[in-house]
This record gives sequence, C-alpha cells and structure tokens, in this order.
Amino acid sequence: MEKTNIAIVGMGTVGTGVARLLLDHGDRTSRHAGRTLWLKKAVVRDLSKPRDIELPDGVATDSIQEVIDDPEITVVAQLIGGLEPARQIMLDLMEAGKDIVTANKALLAQHGPELFTRARELGRSIAFEASVAGGIPIIANISQCLSANQIVSLEGILNGTSNFIVTQMDERGASYDDVVRQAQKLGYAEADPAMDVDGTDAAQKLAILSHLAFGATVDWADIPKVGIDGLAADDLKYARQLGYRIKLIGSAKLAEDGLELSVGPTLVKKGTPLAEVRDAYNAIRVIGDAVGPVFYHGLGAGQMPTASAVVADLIDTAVGRTRLTFQTLEYFSIDQPPRVKLRDADTIEGRYYFRLPVSNHPGTLAAIAAVLAKHDISIASVIQHENTEDGPQVDPVTLVIMTHAATAGSARRATEEIESLESVSGSVVRLQVKD
Amino acid sequence: MEKTNIAIVGMGTVGTGVARLLLDHGDRTSRHAGRTLWLKKAVVRDLSKPRDIELPDGVATDSIQEVIDDPEITVVAQLIGGLEPARQIMLDLMEAGKDIVTANKALLAQHGPELFTRARELGRSIAFEASVAGGIPIIANISQCLSANQIVSLEGILNGTSNFIVTQMDERGASYDDVVRQAQKLGYAEADPAMDVDGTDAAQKLAILSHLAFGATVDWADIPKVGIDGLAADDLKYARQLGYRIKLIGSAKLAEDGLELSVGPTLVKKGTPLAEVRDAYNAIRVIGDAVGPVFYHGLGAGQMPTASAVVADLIDTAVGRTRLTFQTLEYFSIDQPPRVKLRDADTIEGRYYFRLPVSNHPGTLAAIAAVLAKHDISIASVIQHENTEDGPQVDPVTLVIMTHAATAGSARRATEEIESLESVSGSVVRLQVKD
Ligand SMILES: NC(=O)c1ccc[n+]([C@@H]2O[C@H](COP(=O)([O-])OP(=O)(O)OC[C@H]3O[C@@H](n4cnc5c(N)ncnc54)[C@H](OP(=O)(O)O)[C@@H]3O)[C@@H](O)[C@H]2O)c1
Ligand SMILES: NC(=O)c1ccc[n+]([C@@H]2O[C@H](COP(=O)([O-])OP(=O)(O)OC[C@H]3O[C@@H](n4cnc5c(N)ncnc54)[C@H](OP(=O)(O)O)[C@@H]3O)[C@@H](O)[C@H]2O)c1
Repeated sequence: MEKTNIAIVGMGTVGTGVARLLLDHGDRTSRHAGRTLWLKKAVVRDLSKPRDIELPDGVATDSIQEVIDDPEITVVAQLIGGLEPARQIMLDLMEAGKDIVTANKALLAQHGPELFTRARELGRSIAFEASVAGGIPIIANISQCLSANQIVSLEGILNGTSNFIVTQMDERGASYDDVVRQAQKLGYAEADPAMDVDGTDAAQKLAILSHLAFGATVDWADIPKVGIDGLAADDLKYARQLGYRIKLIGSAKLAEDGLELSVGPTLVKKGTPLAEVRDAYNAIRVIGDAVGPVFYHGLGAGQMPTASAVVADLIDTAVGRTRLTFQTLEYFSIDQPPRVKLRDADTIEGRYYFRLPVSNHPGTLAAIAAVLAKHDISIASVIQHENTEDGPQVDPVTLVIMTHAATAGSARRATEEIESLESVSGSVVRLQVKD
Repeated sequence: MEKTNIAIVGMGTVGTGVARLLLDHGDRTSRHAGRTLWLKKAVVRDLSKPRDIELPDGVATDSIQEVIDDPEITVVAQLIGGLEPARQIMLDLMEAGKDIVTANKALLAQHGPELFTRARELGRSIAFEASVAGGIPIIANISQCLSANQIVSLEGILNGTSNFIVTQMDERGASYDDVVRQAQKLGYAEADPAMDVDGTDAAQKLAILSHLAFGATVDWADIPKVGIDGLAADDLKYARQLGYRIKLIGSAKLAEDGLELSVGPTLVKKGTPLAEVRDAYNAIRVIGDAVGPVFYHGLGAGQMPTASAVVADLIDTAVGRTRLTFQTLEYFSIDQPPRVKLRDADTIEGRYYFRLPVSNHPGTLAAIAAVLAKHDISIASVIQHENTEDGPQVDPVTLVIMTHAATAGSARRATEEIESLESVSGSVVRLQVKD
C-alpha cells in the first residue's frame, strides 16, 4: 500500500488527538485514503514536557526545520494556536512543498487572504474543516454538498463555551462568574475565556462561513457583535417567562441590498431547534434555495471531535480531493472581488428585548414608550413588577419590553435616549429576538 | 472556461429539477466546478408529453442511443426510477465511457454490487447522494467528513411520506386512510405508496447506509421491518400519554457480536431530536467514536432538494472528486468481504410497547403478565381503561403495556403466546421504544 508521510506541528489538545487517531486507527485511515497515513514527525516546543501519548521512537522533535527539510513529508497538520509563529511556520511549510491542514480559525480570520493566495501561487492546498464547529463538517457541507444552492441564510451557535455558560445559567440558575469557573474546570473555557464570551470567536467563525457561503469578504472585526459577558440571570428568567431561551447566535442573511451579519445573545423561541441546543454543542442552520433548510448539530470543540475533522482533512488531502476543491473554489483569494456587499448594520430589521432599571414612579413607562414611538419602535409586550403595598419597596424596579420589528439603528438610538432619561437609573440591556 | 457535457436520462420530477438548476444557475455550478456544466441532452420517453420546463432547441431527445453515441457527453444523470430499464441503461452508459449520477435507491439496493463492480472494471464512477434523504448530504458526510471515525450507530427517519403520515395522524388526530389521501394530493406519496408505508423504502436506504457506515453487506429484504400501515390513531394517543411520539425509525447499531438492524414504528421520547422531526422532513443521527453524536435534519425528498443533491454530485464528478472517492472506497465491491456480520435479530435487546384488545374480566391482566414473565419480560407500566359502572360497557377493552428491556425473540414469542390466550380477542400491536 502506498504511504503518505504526515507531520503534526503543535502537540497540544488537538495535536495529541490527531496523533492518537493516526497511530491507533491506521486501518480506518488507510481504508478511507486507499493509502497509509504515516505519522513521521511531531513537532513540540519542549521535548521533556510530559504528554498524554506515547509517540514511536524518532517521531517527536523540537525542530520544525526537520519537517521543512524532509521532502518525504508532504502533508502537515499545523496545530499551533495564535497568529505568530503559526503564520510564519505555515508559509515556510508551504514554501517547502507541503500541503496544510489546520484548525486555527483566528489565523484564517486574520490572515486568510495572504495564506490562501500564497498557497495557490505555490500549488499547495490548505484544508480547515476543524477551524469552525469541530464536530460539524460545515466547511465540506457548504463547499461541496450544498454547491448547487444559493445559500440564503446561515445562522448558528458557533461557540461551545458560551453555549455551555448560558445553558448552565438558564438551567441551574447559576451566576455568570460561577459557571465560567466551572467551564474552566471542565476544560471547556480557556484560562482566559475573553474571546469566547465577548463574541470574538463566534465572529471569526461567522466571517469564515460568510466567505464560503456568500462570497463575502469580511473582516471579522466589522461584524456587529455583542458577547454573553453582559447577560444577567434575570435576562434568562424574563426570556423564559416570555417563551424564549437566550443563545449566542451568529447570523448571516442575504437581503436584497446586501448581507446582514451579526453576533449576539438572542432570544430564540423555545422548541425551535436552535433553542434546544445545550451545553458545549454547536448547531448550524443553513437555508439553500434548492435544498431548503438543513440543520446540523454536533460537539463544537474538544480533543477528539476536532481531531476527527483534522484527520478527515488529512485523508482528503492525501487522496487529492482537497487540491481539486482548493484550486476550483478560490476561497480567500485577494484577486477575487466579493460577490456580495455587507448591508449597513443600522438598517437591519428585527425584534428587540429591552431590560432596564427604572424608578418606580407614575409616568416612567409613558416616557420610555414615547422615546420608542419617536424612533418608530412599537411595543409588543411589557413585564413590570410593581411594588406591592405590603412587600419590600424596591427602587429601581426592572422593566422588560419586547418590541415589534425595528431597525438596529433606531433600536440603538432609542437605547441611548432612554439611558439619558431621568427615570432610568442604569444601562439598558438590548437583545435581538428570533421567532 | 472548460466545459463538461452532461445528459439527463428521465425527465420526471427530479430530472426536471436538475435541468432547471443547470439551465438557470450556470454561474453557481461553474463557480463550484471551475468549468461549465453544459446540458447537452435530456432523454425522455415521449417527446410530445408536455413538461414543466422549456429545454433549449436540440436538447430533448427520445433516443438514449444519441447519448451513448456522443463521446462529448461524459457525465449522465440517470433519473429513471425502478429496476429495468434503469439497470441496463446504466450499464450501457458506463460501457460507453460515461460517469453516472443517480437518485435510484431501489436500483442500488438491489443491484449495487453488480453496477459498482462493473463501474470499477470500466474505470467509471457512480455518485448517489440523492438516493438517500435528498436534502441531507449523508453519503458525503459518512464517506468523507466522518472518515476518521468508527461509526458506532446510525439511526434516523428515512422516509418522508411515512413521517408526514404519522405527524398528521398525531397532530390532527386524522385517520391513516385520510392522511394517505392527503399525502397523495400534496404529491408526497406516490399513487401506490406501498413501498413507503410498509418500510421497504426505509429498509433500502438503511441497507445502503449500513454498507457505507459499517462495511456491512446487507440485502435490504433481510432487515427486520415493520411499516406504519398497521398503526392506529390509538397508538399515537397512548404513546403521547406515556411521553412519546411514534416515528418510523431505521436503526443500525454496532454491538459486540455484530450489527443490529431494524426498521419500524418506534416510540421516541418527546423532546429528543428525532421525536420532533415533523411532516416530510428526514433526520439522521450518527455517532462516531471520535466526533461523538452528529445530527442532520433536512427535507427527505421533493424536486429541488433531490435535484440539489444530484447537481452537487454532477459537480463533484466533473471536478474529479467523485472518481478519487469511488476508486478508494470500494463501495459495493463483490470482492470485498463484509467488515461486520449481522447480529441475529432475535437477540437484540430493547423495550417494547404492546397494545392489545382484552376481555374485561378479572384475571386477564394476570394471565398476560404470566406469559410475559415466562419469557423474561418485565412490565414497566400499564394503561387499562376499566369500564365504569355508569358508562357504556365496552368489551373488549384496550390494554397497553410498556416493558423493560427484553430481546426481540422473546418479545415475538410472547406476542404469539398472548394472541392465543382466550381473553385476548385480536392481534397484538408491538412497537419498539427508544429513550
Ligand atoms: N481545543 C479545541 O477544542 C479546538 C477546537 C477547534 C480549533 N482549535 C484550534 O486548534 C489549535 C490548537 O488548539 P489546542 O487546543 O490544541 O491548543 P493547545 O492545547 O494550546 O496546543 C497548542 C500546542 O502548540 C504548541 N506550540 C506553540 N508554539 C509552538 C512552536 N513554536 N513550535 C511547536 N509547538 C508549538 C504548544 O506547545 P507546548 O505544549 O510546548 O506549549 C501546544 O502543545 C488552535 O488554533 C485552536 O484555536 C482547538
Ligand atoms: N421524487 C423525489 O422526491 C425523489 C427523491 C429521491 C430519489 N428519487 C428517485 O429518483 C428517481 C426518479 O424519481 P422521480 O420522482 O423523478 O420519478 P418520475 O417523476 O416518475 O420520473 C421518472 C422519469 O423517467 C422517465 N422514464 C422512464 N422510463 C424511461 C425510459 N426508458 N427512457 C427515458 N425516460 C424514461 C419517465 O418518463 P415519462 O415522463 O415519459 O413517463 C419519467 O419522466 C427514482 O429512482 C426515485 O426513486 C426521487
């Protein structure tokens, strides 16, 4: 049987999982690749660091140069996180004639055009299934399986850590800080989970998917994003009372005048598929104009789900499928004009949930309603807990308002104006609503 | 731009949809294929029959020979249903050097080994994404995206017509016959829906998926199957009372001593993903040992969802990916020994629901319980509506029993014995239960 020599660069969580699949399950990789995928080198920073896997003699090395200089190694799983040295290593490996498989979405979201253009110049390929929603093969599904469609919308739960946090807050009534600590203990959240909870990670994934699905050229930093870090247990409670759950949703929709992009905690109607996605799972709903709605649900990250995606890419690359796809699709090409422009975020319509602390005086609601009306926002429902005569007298009290459809711009401007009212004693929480 | 000349054979529901995508959306096919997919010929039986699409001059023909003799046509979408002449036409086309894309699951379930072996001998390929669960790209997902996994189970709702029928019976309380008529009017069910409602169609699809996912060589006729044609509105009602919905589930599970296969109406716990699949949708849940559970949901059939799958296959074939996959994977090879054997169906364990008409006399339940106990089946719960003193006196009354885990063999033998009891006045409905 023919042999493809593979190297892994970066033996952390994912790299170790990939090595395990290659070493322990050669039968399945060779059955699907028609050839042996042979792990020849695994590059680590520190050879003396204890690792969760026993590598055959001679495989571990602390020299990336050994891989670069070995012409027998033709495919490399590049599994170092962060931007540098990951970017430079990837370029050096491609210069040396190696095809790349990677899970590094931050790198692609930041340097995709440079890396992909260089790969094409060099006749190399980059496969990146593992970079978005590890356990859901969404890259292959958009790029190949749904290729007969104009995709009209794509929305999903793209960050498992955030979803774990909101699920636990919702189901156990735990506080944000407690759940973050629990997520770190369980290994879901990183030591610094900032990029997960502030929506950065979801925005980076949405930028990648929007390019694949719509041909949009998006800087992830331009996607309007809100994280879950501002959510209070109260929001989950009020949402529940109104028949919703709150999920961090990344959404891309094709409208007549451009692509609507957003990332933010969203009230999703209970019983709909996205609302029922729990814990560290991800889910993506794609609508194609021919196929209709397709819904995918799977683990968002973790060692083996991510390794599963990396090894599928290694097989596709060894077989030669990746090269055909990569050359045809021109993903992240700097010569390729975007096929769609982004819609001015302020003009996007949607329903909103407002929660605000107000003083418990007559006229407060009227003043707020007047501001909303001025901005063309009509109220669908209100929750306000009045002080009862014999209960404790609380001030401020919480006011929750659900609106009918309004533009993001007017919702933002109304929010600013409401926050400046005398009867409003703090900042307004404003979330999108999806029915 | 290069051009791949395509022919469609069979311009029915699916063929017309495929022609529409090729003719109206050349931009997206050429973007994904890096070449033009040019519809050169469309073979019909009767040129004078009015069709839902206007073909460019010279495309329609009633002569398959014209396609066979045209060396420029390299890829053919073979969209005639049934076994003959579909089988012979496929062989003739491959002899003439054409790669095939098909949606005909009956043909593959029956003649897969012959057709695939001949294709390999001739250096041709057969792509068949559209043959199972049209809107869910399950073939590519199993064959490529999940290739790093040992798949340990696969279960799903594989027949849209059956699911439409049980959903409507359940939600509207309509009778089986009424809903079948409605499904025919809506175009879901064929004039003769026998193969849909008796489980044949689901068993054929399960046989194909079991081969792909487990390397099993299965004659679909050997899969133990029950259809939805024996379901009564009462079963749906009792299931609901017990916290379940009834769905026609095709299931394949890898156990230590072989593969467990079955198709049948199954009580599925409300709130779980498969239970909430409604109307003509299909859904498939795959568990891989690395990736964990992955859930897919999409339209099961219909013109454009099926055409979407056919055109994705046409693109993959034109690009050259299909050939790489086809040659590597050795699907349906007569030289390939099965990688797994089928488990004796009688030894498969599961919980059961029994509904039976019993005479309303003391001792009846005791007699039935004794038979169950004799066969090692223990009772989990019972529903029996006693006659009340002032209500109408009904005889027989309905008895519903939910059991704990038992083997299929003992459930079957117990059923036979119960049916022979004097106090049981008709046949027993026995359904599987999934928690
Ligand atoms: N973990 C997941 O579930 C998941 C899911 C999807 C995508 N990803 C992505 O996959 C990538 C890897 O993630 P991970 O979770 O495996 O991270 P990780 O556990 O932190 O592993 C990164 C590894 O890279 C190694 N490394 C860093 N710089 C190196 C250098 N110059 N030379 C050689 N090795 C170097 C580190 O070595 P030391 O061990 O010596 O520090 C570490 O082992 C990231 O881009 C991440 O975003 C991860
Ligand atoms: N419909 C779906 O949603 C769906 C979904 C998945 C898979 N499929 C499969 O796709 C295949 C086609 O289904 P369909 O729904 O399109 O069936 P259909 O509407 O009955 O179309 C079949 C077509 O084949 C034509 N035909 C039959 N014998 C022929 C011959 N000797 N030469 C040329 N044409 C011939 C028929 O021609 P006339 O028009 O002259 O009768 C008819 O147009 C079947 O195998 C089916 O199981 C269908």
